[in-house]
Amino acid sequence: MSKLLRATVVAHMLLSEMIREGDVVVDATAGNGHDTLFLAKLVGIRGKVYAFDIQEEALRKTGSLLEENGCLAQVELIHDGHENIGKYVKEQVRCVMYNLGYLPGGDKSIITQGTTTISSLEQATHLLSKEGVISLMVYSGHPGGLSEAEEVENFVKSLTSPPWHVLKWQKINGTQRGPYLIVLYKRDK
Amino acid sequence: MSKLLRATVVAHMLLSEMIREGDVVVDATAGNGHDTLFLAKLVGIRGKVYAFDIQEEALRKTGSLLEENGCLAQVELIHDGHENIGKYVKEQVRCVMYNLGYLPGGDKSIITQGTTTISSLEQATHLLSKEGVISLMVYSGHPGGLSEAEEVENFVKSLTSPPWHVLKWQKINGTQRGPYLIVLYKRDK
Repeated sequence: MSKLLRATVVAHMLLSEMIREGDVVVDATAGNGHDTLFLAKLVGIRGKVYAFDIQEEALRKTGSLLEENGCLAQVELIHDGHENIGKYVKEQVRCVMYNLGYLPGGDKSIITQGTTTISSLEQATHLLSKEGVISLMVYSGHPGGLSEAEEVENFVKSLTSPPWHVLKWQKINGTQRGPYLIVLYKRDK
Repeated sequence: MSKLLRATVVAHMLLSEMIREGDVVVDATAGNGHDTLFLAKLVGIRGKVYAFDIQEEALRKTGSLLEENGCLAQVELIHDGHENIGKYVKEQVRCVMYNLGYLPGGDKSIITQGTTTISSLEQATHLLSKEGVISLMVYSGHPGGLSEAEEVENFVKSLTSPPWHVLKWQKINGTQRGPYLIVLYKRDK
């Protein structure tokens, strides 16, 4: 039952209520494809998912997972870093999902970096439609993770309210903290 | 759509997945009865809700709301402070809900206090069954609110993990912060 309180599960619970069939959305870090599949199911065949990853291995896994689930048609797999999101996405989007850190089961030396993550986030805030949402799974436990987490927190805390509502879901006791969730919501007014 | 991200809504979303029909639960601060009704509907006629409030006005409102919704039978209304929870509740409970601060629409000088809240929380942690959950809506904006919030945070952060998972859902940008949510989950192992 504690699974329900996991940051990844809370993120999916919130986004599944906010994303509609036909929406255009972005998976900034496709990784093993779990979030890409989640998004592809939500937006359906009338919607679109742009999925980015710098690692071919990640895109191959993501493509296979989508194909197995009959969801490949609505997804554009992009072999590039999410800091280049503005080059590929020219329309307003309902959602951008980030899963920071390294590819689970992959090369742990290949990690997302503060500078490129902030550049990507800045572009994402401009691409987002009203009532759009950006979710970030933030990992601070791996080398480089803490400084990226700090950069991300500084950036999101600097966003003005309104229109931005920035919320955090985080374990606050014990030493094993795990990933935490940051949600950026762009209010309509 | 931003309603979904409100601390009160997130609390209800999580608890509605964790509380089962027939459960025994506690509303430590009945107030206007919204949480009492929410809990009474979840546990149903085979379950039980203990609802505390020090203000008669609050219990009267809560009673009326429960009656209108046909949920009075499974609720025991207790005219006493939640720091006396151990006097009335002698069985293990699945959930204890707290809504700190003052009664909305009532006398704003009557507020929950750090000392009694911590005493109540200590008892609640012992009454809680495995896989049980304590939720706290914390308000820091009213006079006395900030010091109570600090006492609560210090207490919950001191709980060991395992078995305790303590999580926080909070707005982290802008000056208007509003209430935030703390969830204490008691793991099975």
